[in-house]
Amino acid sequence: MKNEPCFALALHGGAGTITRASLTPEMDNAYRQALQQALSVGYQVLQQGGTSLAAVEATVVSLEDCPLFNAGRGSVFNKRGTHEMDAAIMDGKNLGAGAVTGVRNVRNPILLASQVLHHSDHVFLCQQGAEEFARNHGLSFEPDDYFFTQQRYDQWQALRDSDTYMLDHSSEAMDKKFGTVGAVALDLQGNLAAATSTGGMTNKNYNRIGDTPIIGAGTYANNRTCAISCTGHGEYFMRNVVAYDISCLMEYKGLSLSEASALVVHHKLKEQGGEGGLVAVDFNAEVAMPFNSEGMYRASWVSGQEPVVAIYEE
Amino acid sequence: MKNEPCFALALHGGAGTITRASLTPEMDNAYRQALQQALSVGYQVLQQGGTSLAAVEATVVSLEDCPLFNAGRGSVFNKRGTHEMDAAIMDGKNLGAGAVTGVRNVRNPILLASQVLHHSDHVFLCQQGAEEFARNHGLSFEPDDYFFTQQRYDQWQALRDSDTYMLDHSSEAMDKKFGTVGAVALDLQGNLAAATSTGGMTNKNYNRIGDTPIIGAGTYANNRTCAISCTGHGEYFMRNVVAYDISCLMEYKGLSLSEASALVVHHKLKEQGGEGGLVAVDFNAEVAMPFNSEGMYRASWVSGQEPVVAIYEE
Repeated sequence: MKNEPCFALALHGGAGTITRASLTPEMDNAYRQALQQALSVGYQVLQQGGTSLAAVEATVVSLEDCPLFNAGRGSVFNKRGTHEMDAAIMDGKNLGAGAVTGVRNVRNPILLASQVLHHSDHVFLCQQGAEEFARNHGLSFEPDDYFFTQQRYDQWQALRDSDTYMLDHSSEAMDKKFGTVGAVALDLQGNLAAATSTGGMTNKNYNRIGDTPIIGAGTYANNRTCAISCTGHGEYFMRNVVAYDISCLMEYKGLSLSEASALVVHHKLKEQGGEGGLVAVDFNAEVAMPFNSEGMYRASWVSGQEPVVAIYEE
Repeated sequence: MKNEPCFALALHGGAGTITRASLTPEMDNAYRQALQQALSVGYQVLQQGGTSLAAVEATVVSLEDCPLFNAGRGSVFNKRGTHEMDAAIMDGKNLGAGAVTGVRNVRNPILLASQVLHHSDHVFLCQQGAEEFARNHGLSFEPDDYFFTQQRYDQWQALRDSDTYMLDHSSEAMDKKFGTVGAVALDLQGNLAAATSTGGMTNKNYNRIGDTPIIGAGTYANNRTCAISCTGHGEYFMRNVVAYDISCLMEYKGLSLSEASALVVHHKLKEQGGEGGLVAVDFNAEVAMPFNSEGMYRASWVSGQEPVVAIYEE
């Protein structure tokens, strides 16, 4: 079947200490439904002959619009009680890339990153400048209310007067979860693309930028190798240039996607204490979704196969 | 002599269309003196047994304090007539990294990046958050006057009502120069480090972030391979993850530093139209300073050899 034209999509909704015990059956079900929904949206784009770029964009929009995930609508509160979001998208066909950091009130940061990719001389725009670009290019803005969720607010209230920050939407600061959403795809034309979006860390300070919008760290796509979207403790992913490392291990060392991504996630990152995971797809429609945390919200669908939706370790 | 403990330093002050015809003898001499001065500062640190991290920091401070280069004091004017600076530093011993983007009025952005490396849980801080971190850690601030240079102001005046931006301190928008400073070093303990700093692009808009503060793109160091500081058209350096690409070509494909850096600068980047260059040193004190533009302000000094200071193509 390998010679048949095929397409593939994989996505994540964050990684961390997500165990069966920590999710009620209702929450477990709600997450699975949201993952399935986002998967179907992207799969349809690919099935109808759409580009991998359009598929990852549509998938991430679906995840951004769902309040369960820390991106777009469900973004966490920062130190000042507002929402600052990051996103990046990359086209494996020509290495085109667009990224934004610290944007507020933009409904879908991934659509802004996509506009930067298509309509800017630049790759990476920041804060007010990125918002000005968004207004000049007709992106939808939402009031603060749109981004309000009681759970996120309660998390922030528990931390706001401390110097503690939370890596994600856990109710306990020490209970690490890494709130990010992302998608990777291979389309019928053989083009790869990757997209990632995040609302950052609860109570984050100093306008910290994580790996999500960094091309090569949290997001990367290259038709010669693979497309990758990461989620995890961003500082480790940045210092290890994780996404591009996997691409290089394939291109320069001849490793398969699963070998390369397992080496990086289960050895390099793990030895340093760098918790998290990623979703990846290569030019051959091989999918890998390794993580070294207890769980990762994830899903994948390769044409001609059954869709996969999973949360915990197998 | 290879078995003797040795140390090495290389630095750059930007690349672009720098030809003998474009510099007066006085300017040529002024640039060479500034390069020599910065080289001596860093070399002394290494000679006295200091770390590569301290050497690249001191070298970049010297370049930031010189109004000839587009970093620190000599930073160009952005669209709003202010100065926004980026910097990054990386320790090849443990992959520690610190980076800042869009900071104003900080006298030495590289010292701020260094404070982030040493005293923050984070790698990358942005704008006001980075400035707040700087105040909390006792960094020196300077009034706008400190960053005023007549040449930069005249450049900005020529562009301010247009949508044009300049990649550097040229007097003609189409005459590309890439204003960045950077240094790489190997110390007597065998540790590598890299540091890069920039004042960005004249009349830049939308808070654009370039490759300088991106770990893996404009700045990277790893004791297993090399230390690299880039200067050039940042968008190409980001999409090609240039600094980490060279490290991977060495580690995974067995290329030498000069082979790897030449492949990336003279082939990969050149084929895409990505103009610029870089300075690099490996664990064996081999130095490479390739560029695909007409000139690059550069200097290097390997222990036991003569110092090199150069501007144009050989």
